Amino acid sequence: MLQNGISVITLTPFDDQGNLDEKGIRKLTDFYIQSGVHGMTILGIMGEVHKLSDHERLRVMNLVLEQTNGRAPVTVGCTAEGTKIAIDLAKEAERAGAQAVMIAAPRNLNNEDMLFKHYTEIADNISLPIVIQDEPVTTGVKMSPQFIARLGNEIDNVQYVKLEEAPTTVKITKILNETDQLKIYGGLGGMYFFEELDRGAAGIMTGFAFPEVLVKTFELFTNNQKEAAREYFYQNLPLIRFEAQLGIGGVAIRKETFKLRGIIDSSHVRFPGASVDQRTMEELQEIIDFVGLTVK
Amino acid sequence: MLQNGISVITLTPFDDQGNLDEKGIRKLTDFYIQSGVHGMTILGIMGEVHKLSDHERLRVMNLVLEQTNGRAPVTVGCTAEGTKIAIDLAKEAERAGAQAVMIAAPRNLNNEDMLFKHYTEIADNISLPIVIQDEPVTTGVKMSPQFIARLGNEIDNVQYVKLEEAPTTVKITKILNETDQLKIYGGLGGMYFFEELDRGAAGIMTGFAFPEVLVKTFELFTNNQKEAAREYFYQNLPLIRFEAQLGIGGVAIRKETFKLRGIIDSSHVRFPGASVDQRTMEELQEIIDFVGLTVK
Amino acid sequence: MLQNGISVITLTPFDDQGNLDEKGIRKLTDFYIQSGVHGMTILGIMGEVHKLSDHERLRVMNLVLEQTNGRAPVTVGCTAEGTKIAIDLAKEAERAGAQAVMIAAPRNLNNEDMLFKHYTEIADNISLPIVIQDEPVTTGVKMSPQFIARLGNEIDNVQYVKLEEAPTTVKITKILNETDQLKIYGGLGGMYFFEELDRGAAGIMTGFAFPEVLVKTFELFTNNQKEAAREYFYQNLPLIRFEAQLGIGGVAIRKETFKLRGIIDSSHVRFPGASVDQRTMEELQEIIDFVGLTVK
Amino acid sequence: MLQNGISVITLTPFDDQGNLDEKGIRKLTDFYIQSGVHGMTILGIMGEVHKLSDHERLRVMNLVLEQTNGRAPVTVGCTAEGTKIAIDLAKEAERAGAQAVMIAAPRNLNNEDMLFKHYTEIADNISLPIVIQDEPVTTGVKMSPQFIARLGNEIDNVQYVKLEEAPTTVKITKILNETDQLKIYGGLGGMYFFEELDRGAAGIMTGFAFPEVLVKTFELFTNNQKEAAREYFYQNLPLIRFEAQLGIGGVAIRKETFKLRGIIDSSHVRFPGASVDQRTMEELQEIIDFVGLTVK
Repeated sequence: MLQNGISVITLTPFDDQGNLDEKGIRKLTDFYIQSGVHGMTILGIMGEVHKLSDHERLRVMNLVLEQTNGRAPVTVGCTAEGTKIAIDLAKEAERAGAQAVMIAAPRNLNNEDMLFKHYTEIADNISLPIVIQDEPVTTGVKMSPQFIARLGNEIDNVQYVKLEEAPTTVKITKILNETDQLKIYGGLGGMYFFEELDRGAAGIMTGFAFPEVLVKTFELFTNNQKEAAREYFYQNLPLIRFEAQLGIGGVAIRKETFKLRGIIDSSHVRFPGASVDQRTMEELQEIIDFVGLTVK
Repeated sequence: MLQNGISVITLTPFDDQGNLDEKGIRKLTDFYIQSGVHGMTILGIMGEVHKLSDHERLRVMNLVLEQTNGRAPVTVGCTAEGTKIAIDLAKEAERAGAQAVMIAAPRNLNNEDMLFKHYTEIADNISLPIVIQDEPVTTGVKMSPQFIARLGNEIDNVQYVKLEEAPTTVKITKILNETDQLKIYGGLGGMYFFEELDRGAAGIMTGFAFPEVLVKTFELFTNNQKEAAREYFYQNLPLIRFEAQLGIGGVAIRKETFKLRGIIDSSHVRFPGASVDQRTMEELQEIIDFVGLTVK
Repeated sequence: MLQNGISVITLTPFDDQGNLDEKGIRKLTDFYIQSGVHGMTILGIMGEVHKLSDHERLRVMNLVLEQTNGRAPVTVGCTAEGTKIAIDLAKEAERAGAQAVMIAAPRNLNNEDMLFKHYTEIADNISLPIVIQDEPVTTGVKMSPQFIARLGNEIDNVQYVKLEEAPTTVKITKILNETDQLKIYGGLGGMYFFEELDRGAAGIMTGFAFPEVLVKTFELFTNNQKEAAREYFYQNLPLIRFEAQLGIGGVAIRKETFKLRGIIDSSHVRFPGASVDQRTMEELQEIIDFVGLTVK
Repeated sequence: MLQNGISVITLTPFDDQGNLDEKGIRKLTDFYIQSGVHGMTILGIMGEVHKLSDHERLRVMNLVLEQTNGRAPVTVGCTAEGTKIAIDLAKEAERAGAQAVMIAAPRNLNNEDMLFKHYTEIADNISLPIVIQDEPVTTGVKMSPQFIARLGNEIDNVQYVKLEEAPTTVKITKILNETDQLKIYGGLGGMYFFEELDRGAAGIMTGFAFPEVLVKTFELFTNNQKEAAREYFYQNLPLIRFEAQLGIGGVAIRKETFKLRGIIDSSHVRFPGASVDQRTMEELQEIIDFVGLTVK
């Protein structure tokens, strides 16, 4: 069972040679929890899961779960091209103590019957709740609000959806008009988080490197201070927007940010991955200063 | 010859039956000019050019040029699947008094040699400057900074490029590192306009429905008030970001905005095109109020 | 009303400067009819319709209809990005005496509700039958057998579908299992024409440059000489397959073939379009000789 | 070092529950070798590699290499989204005794500089030759003949390329015009094998379920019996073409074929994967009979 609020999509720290930085994983886990997030989503695209071996994938999962030690619910990304592998990953996650699994469509599986079967078969093999990851850009699969609602209505374990197709705001409304069986998490780097909440989102899953900003926005919003939430959120928009521009290159800038903050030692991103130019780092610092945050 | 600054990408007003609203086109042209823009870019995707007949395309061009009457440079979108048609459109634009033509890649022409030849042949047939429209999402064609720079270096008429591939900031730097033969216009709905200017952009081409905001940002920036430009721009970010989320659906919200402002009578968008839900219009109004703008 | 059998997808001849070759259009029309085809489908991709102006599109239609003079039913390609333009084109076709219109999905319109509305609105404005063109590669839109059947079941004018998604054989069976309101034409350059017929196709729409081969296959098949049809078809497979490899580049090789046959004067293909290398022409001649056809 | 000729792309047999069928892998390996192929290419898309765990991937490799025992060179598919994982897989292949590794582009990596670096880094870490797998449909990456030639000219280990972009014939000529450092293998299910050889291909890598047909075509061709090769190849075209229509669904029909031949016990394909309808199996049998082959 997941909590409403911010389930941060976590990075996977490496050392400068590109090996898993186990100490960094532990420190980063602690940092996320201390920033007040309501959960963690590990082994997503932001966690470079597609550039990990199966062994590393398992290792990261176990490290995070061990370090978390029940302090926050952990959702484990179990996306795979084949149903059998997704089931095996989801079972591992269940055994290891995860609270949920997140699963995107297999690449280019633009066939609703087959996609429905994919999710059904996974659901039949685990008792954990499933987060449907709506991720059209990476997967090449577009899921309509009707189809997402159908997954929620017809498959018991399917209890959450994390949106990434813009505009998330309109899609939230369309899904909620079709089902009351799904809690919806927003995305898009947090760029529309206030409006997503206002449309009825339960929270957000995103990798924005200052999760405390989203946490505070959420707390104000749910504490009947909606206009204060709006104001606080808009004040931090220059930064949220800046990070969001980098898309997948956002891994690099987020790692640089956590390095600046002293939480990880290396900002290494596994190749191929866009690097960040020097000016981008300067712009980042200027914007952090402008909005009044600090990296430390 | 284009000016630095804001070249607004114009809408094409229709009546409620979907016919060209000629009076609306004239009023909207006046409005854009009065808002202080440094140019207009007509017959782009925002202008629903792909849903116009050739005859309507020509009619819109002539109306805007006539109404503008030299008060601002007009860039005419002349993108076509075939080189011959693009040439014919560009010649018409030249004859009619346009200051430049904007041309995106033919759909899915992922072949640099053929793309280079496409632009060369167009350039050989006109004396107007050409704006390369870098539009990967719509065209399916990704142009590298090196290739764009090569177009600028090797084809005389190719003097401008309008970027739409995120992150535009980094791409601006990469192109400027390869050529001094191109002036660069930013895009992405204006979301990174301050940073684009700071990277060396000459201006922006975008359809944001409050062009006066971008005009003022540009004026502050070029008037040695960089930090004031930043502050003013960031203050309006909630709105810029909100419009940008709608992508192509942004045509509808922008038409609704101009209808609210009393400039056009109908917000009709030719089908197929995403419509705007009621809540989106309310959100829009709330954000306009928040940033302190008025629709009238 | 269309006939069962071969509705050849026609080329659009140009002169060496790329202008419409009106005499060539007439001669080619006569050739197609003399080859025994049961219809013609004009202004498809093979006819370079996307590289024609609206005026040229109309001119080609009128020339072909005039030259045909009722000797064969003519289907007119009326695909457009916007519904209004598609309607206008379809009305022109109806006025001019076409027997049907063929309409593919607007590019990237991966939204069944909007696609259904697109076809419904066109159908409401004409009395001609509509051929749904299932063309996933060019349009980026994948239509499921269920959706195609629904179009046939729910929209009166939708009476035909032309398939281009492989495997067409299996898709024919799936569609026929869902509806008896659609006649199905195969495609893929004729590569599976025998098997398509055997699955229940009414015929084929394709641009293969030796339509007489498909005509004879069809006649044998429908004349209770199924095994003779198979044998004759397989004997010509080396050539059918050879042309099919070139995809859109197939325009060039087909124009070269008709030039060799003395029907058109120029093999000009409007740019951008793949040209044919010298070796390809030699291979073509070798294969024509092998299967025992003649170009004259 | 690979041999010229047919390097069959192998299937991965499962039992009816979807587990690796180790006995079937051994039997199938023997069958391939007995059919006279000049090599095997394992762990490609046809081998459902994207639906295997890392552990299974390794297990299949070791089983095939052990069973082959030097009787034929084995190329191991080592494609991965990240360079580090591809390197690790390639090193494993080298250690295990493979003769070459085959590597496609990471998905959607449409950036020549990064792609070049990807191949360079892999090459720097192994001494085995690399087969560049040109696979635009699955990877979303289009490699120009110039770029492929550059890989061959500038990276020592890059010694082979396997083509899958139609028309392979024309691409072979273009690559050979740019480099003499690459041996080229054709593809497309064998549909143009005769013409590929005639253009200078060294052989073919494909999963066609009757590899003996391609072997005999190759032997005739290289034994100065070119016209006999052509005749024999064209005689079998109805079958080659039939299998090729199924694309990725071809896994199922090929497994059914090998089951009919008594080589594997189960035709299980891991989900999601297109299944084969009953009529397709009947068509297959009819065509096998027509061309005069036998399944046993």
